[in-house]
Amino acid sequence: MTTGSAHPDLPHPDAAHLLDVPHHDGSRLFVPAGTPAPGDVVPARVRVPKGAGVRDVWLRTVLDGEPRMTRARRDGGDAHEDWYAADVVVHHPVTSYRFFLDVPGGYRWLDGRGVHDREVPDAASFRMTTHAPAPAWLTEGLAYQVFPDRFARSRAADDREPPSWAVPAAWDDEPAGTGPLAGTQLFGGDLDGVVDHLDHIQALGVRTLYLTPVFPGRSNHRYDASTFDHVDPLLGGDAAYARLAHAVHARGMRLMGDVTTNHTGDGHEWFARALADPSSPEHAMYLWAGSGPDVVAVPGRPGYVGWLGHGSLPKLDWSADETWRRMITGEDAVVARYLREPFALDGWRVDVANMTGRYGAADRARAVARALRERVVGERPDGALVAEHFHDASADLAGDGWHANMNYAGFTRPAWSWLVPEGSLVPFLDLPTGVPRRPGGAMVAAMREFASAVPWQVTAAQWNMLGSHDTPRLRTLVGSRELVEVAAALLFTYPGAPVVFAGDEVGATGTNGEHGRTTMAWDQAAGGGPRWDAATLDAYRSLSALRASSRALREGGLRWAAVRDDAVAYLRETPDERVLVVLARAPWAGVQLPAHLLAPGAQPERLFGDVALTATAGGLYVSGEGPGTGVWRLA
Amino acid sequence: MTTGSAHPDLPHPDAAHLLDVPHHDGSRLFVPAGTPAPGDVVPARVRVPKGAGVRDVWLRTVLDGEPRMTRARRDGGDAHEDWYAADVVVHHPVTSYRFFLDVPGGYRWLDGRGVHDREVPDAASFRMTTHAPAPAWLTEGLAYQVFPDRFARSRAADDREPPSWAVPAAWDDEPAGTGPLAGTQLFGGDLDGVVDHLDHIQALGVRTLYLTPVFPGRSNHRYDASTFDHVDPLLGGDAAYARLAHAVHARGMRLMGDVTTNHTGDGHEWFARALADPSSPEHAMYLWAGSGPDVVAVPGRPGYVGWLGHGSLPKLDWSADETWRRMITGEDAVVARYLREPFALDGWRVDVANMTGRYGAADRARAVARALRERVVGERPDGALVAEHFHDASADLAGDGWHANMNYAGFTRPAWSWLVPEGSLVPFLDLPTGVPRRPGGAMVAAMREFASAVPWQVTAAQWNMLGSHDTPRLRTLVGSRELVEVAAALLFTYPGAPVVFAGDEVGATGTNGEHGRTTMAWDQAAGGGPRWDAATLDAYRSLSALRASSRALREGGLRWAAVRDDAVAYLRETPDERVLVVLARAPWAGVQLPAHLLAPGAQPERLFGDVALTATAGGLYVSGEGPGTGVWRLA
Repeated sequence: MTTGSAHPDLPHPDAAHLLDVPHHDGSRLFVPAGTPAPGDVVPARVRVPKGAGVRDVWLRTVLDGEPRMTRARRDGGDAHEDWYAADVVVHHPVTSYRFFLDVPGGYRWLDGRGVHDREVPDAASFRMTTHAPAPAWLTEGLAYQVFPDRFARSRAADDREPPSWAVPAAWDDEPAGTGPLAGTQLFGGDLDGVVDHLDHIQALGVRTLYLTPVFPGRSNHRYDASTFDHVDPLLGGDAAYARLAHAVHARGMRLMGDVTTNHTGDGHEWFARALADPSSPEHAMYLWAGSGPDVVAVPGRPGYVGWLGHGSLPKLDWSADETWRRMITGEDAVVARYLREPFALDGWRVDVANMTGRYGAADRARAVARALRERVVGERPDGALVAEHFHDASADLAGDGWHANMNYAGFTRPAWSWLVPEGSLVPFLDLPTGVPRRPGGAMVAAMREFASAVPWQVTAAQWNMLGSHDTPRLRTLVGSRELVEVAAALLFTYPGAPVVFAGDEVGATGTNGEHGRTTMAWDQAAGGGPRWDAATLDAYRSLSALRASSRALREGGLRWAAVRDDAVAYLRETPDERVLVVLARAPWAGVQLPAHLLAPGAQPERLFGDVALTATAGGLYVSGEGPGTGVWRLA
Repeated sequence: MTTGSAHPDLPHPDAAHLLDVPHHDGSRLFVPAGTPAPGDVVPARVRVPKGAGVRDVWLRTVLDGEPRMTRARRDGGDAHEDWYAADVVVHHPVTSYRFFLDVPGGYRWLDGRGVHDREVPDAASFRMTTHAPAPAWLTEGLAYQVFPDRFARSRAADDREPPSWAVPAAWDDEPAGTGPLAGTQLFGGDLDGVVDHLDHIQALGVRTLYLTPVFPGRSNHRYDASTFDHVDPLLGGDAAYARLAHAVHARGMRLMGDVTTNHTGDGHEWFARALADPSSPEHAMYLWAGSGPDVVAVPGRPGYVGWLGHGSLPKLDWSADETWRRMITGEDAVVARYLREPFALDGWRVDVANMTGRYGAADRARAVARALRERVVGERPDGALVAEHFHDASADLAGDGWHANMNYAGFTRPAWSWLVPEGSLVPFLDLPTGVPRRPGGAMVAAMREFASAVPWQVTAAQWNMLGSHDTPRLRTLVGSRELVEVAAALLFTYPGAPVVFAGDEVGATGTNGEHGRTTMAWDQAAGGGPRWDAATLDAYRSLSALRASSRALREGGLRWAAVRDDAVAYLRETPDERVLVVLARAPWAGVQLPAHLLAPGAQPERLFGDVALTATAGGLYVSGEGPGTGVWRLA
């Protein structure tokens, strides 16, 4: 079936045309730094290429439900483009705006999806928010995800008795992808094992170490906590977690924890009391229901709601004050306690944030997120809060709650769909299909549409991933080291915080989340080996160092320069720097970009990759080899 | 500047392809009649043309923030298409769903915008709502808008003294379009004048008579009420309003009023007391502010917020209980009183609904809408509530408050932009431009995108207009009787309730809202005349009768069959009826539609217009004359 041009909001996939399109985003070139206060008046700038044929520019804001049109003033420019500026009255916690472009034959609207030749709803309008952004450390550098059971074993691990639920595995065993073993296979990694390998982590340029849950449970993933009062002795307990925190902080890195606000394990001490005594305070903390989605019927138990119906994961009821007290607001609330010494976590990744506080007509998800933010920054002014939301999270990302989200929808899924080979059988997360191979236009349209629904400050802090403990491994998805490198180049040069799941940097494989929870083959680190791809590791280290060396890659705006089925090119720009990124999944025709992108008299400075770029007075010629990558500083 | 294909979500503009696209909407063919209760399980059906190449269909619902995939079952079909059905668990007040289409080379999503070959956000997902729809009478027939000062003068009008603010005008004077006169020119129409001409209204097939405000004010439009306690004596007072209501109801028609919930006039008795006594209950009812958008600085008055800064329209403060009591919740609240005898209004059109209860961080707009709905249906179980929101109203149209909205964004603006001539100088409402001429694809994409953001039951009740007392006149916009007829054919055959501003049906002209508030030239009604276009009136009467005669046109779903720059074709369908509508703004190439759209052995039954349709075994050939219209019953 044809869908016609499914990528509406992009101009023709022609470089000249793409860069002929007026552009605005929330980055420094267009909006002053800092967070505006209610009532502030903030100039918003827009760049208008001469080729766009724009005669006049107006700003449209929506105040109290009513659009207001403000004529923009010319604000500089050169032979190639004009700049305009207009004042946004910051009248709302989040104030919506877009640009009206007067062109011959009918005006255009410019919003976060692009340029439109018709009336459009406000969903993709730009957003100016009064809420503080994520702490700088969250977006400045690489976040590295560790699944404790699979990263490294300390000597102490050998002395520990496996618990009754566990099935011990040898370090080099292949993780079970399905069946009971997937949750019970215990490889015995522990927290001191992570301490032992902080050199590897630091050498990768990691700024934030993120560990999945460390609370005791009845599974190797520990998302089924049996208590929040102490760290799992199997991992070394509180003392080991404190040692890790101290060692991480001593190296100038940050440490983030992982907490379940949607549910606990059915082995949790709270749930035990809730079952034993309907008059207990704990009973009010769970969601009891006789019917409805996800209701669990366990013989001898009253009906309760479990995460996606799993009896092992009873859902917390956020209509209960006790839930708020124990999790968020109480003096010793779970999310507060671990932000203090001796752990001093720098923030939380929150599991199943999309379902937390939601059941039927009750929706307390945003209230929970706002309260979590308030408590986290109350304990740690530079604390961070990241949500797990696999889907359309825009309604939860106004910037008042979660600082950022795990960006599966706006980054991971589109990137995978561009990079997988034709006919891939790797399952596409919750969809009843393998990951489909899509053209570059589909990837870019999806990335733009999801990004357009949240404030730029959120986009700039999103946790972008090429995989996690819940997904197949990147290497298995794309099938080759060359395409892993293209994917990694996208990860490290796209707006937002790059997040790497431990093992991706050495070419780990796996067909789904459980199967991909592979151990680190430290014994192969020295000489390389089938589970330690030294070349991929080199690429990750180089890209991480590159991002650290370029403000444009960390904070710059994003302009798409060329979008083809098999290649994309984009610019990351700050007032002082312009970086060009070219990514090709396959051989393509190459493209000519305007010569004026290059600073006068300068030559392109190659920062990464080996795609050829030839600069002449006539233009910048990008050659069409692929798979390949090229990153250059143009100004 | 190119915007590339700006109409993404439409398949390739090729009739065969358009009808090869799977389709779902909320109409009877796809969703059972009636309003589901929370917890109900409701089958949603989708039609899948064989040409679409779909191998399998799944339903995606979002429950508690998490998507759930349900495989659809085959549910009938024929040689040309398959039908599938899957069960929606109505778990939320508004439950979101869309369809997953498994096709070779990658799945597609089907939502309210169309078919997509990439991941999409949930904004355009279909919506199943537990909220009761608008009363049937609101959508069944034509609504007719009367601006009392301009419709008709009764004998009694001659005996009335004009008030001090008024500048009397002769009935045939041209209304002032700008300047002070625009608001003070008084033509002296009254309520008994409307009674005198109910034959004209009824002959047009009107089911709902809607009058703009009848409360006293200091202007000819009366949106600046000085009291809500009685009807303006200039219009005949309470007695005349009661006579009109009785006469309207006696003819089986409905009567809707117009109330301002955002503001009153600065001559209002409440505002006088508020100014005189800061300790008065009335003082709390207004929004006093020293600075911020729309703040009015009148010497000798404390600063207050006025509608768009107009000092004559002080804004009500919905944080005050007194405002709620007097307007909505009190025993004799304004919106309740007039729903009772002797007026027994059938509902309200609410002025500036988009701004009501909104100022800065305070947003009580939806709470006000829900309370208004509760009170209106409490007084009148079949009462109706329609909002005035010129813009993106989707956030206010979940179906729990307003039954429907004045559909400027989703109907009026797109229709105008398709029908105006090139280079029109008629101002486009609040935009700093004349109305631009757009291709059919732009009209359809805008209509689809705005409709996709609200439940079908709201789309089916929206007040669609080709003009109102706030806009230029249709005839002036499109420039010819022929194009007025094309526009009217769209109005009467598109989903939603057609609304006609008195005078459009006889070719009234006007370059803006004020200039278009022309009087009815009753003296020309018999023989016709420059201000009474009998041919246009015939067309309106025929189209109104046509809609009344066709359930498909009143309640049917909507499938686009062909979209061209100069012509569009669509199907309105119920389980028992299929109507084809073809509209051309200019000569075009014509189109061939599939023969199987026609019931076996049947011939197309022409219902309206003169575009030629030839039915052969090979297809239905629509000829390309234009401007022109054709409406046929095919089954």
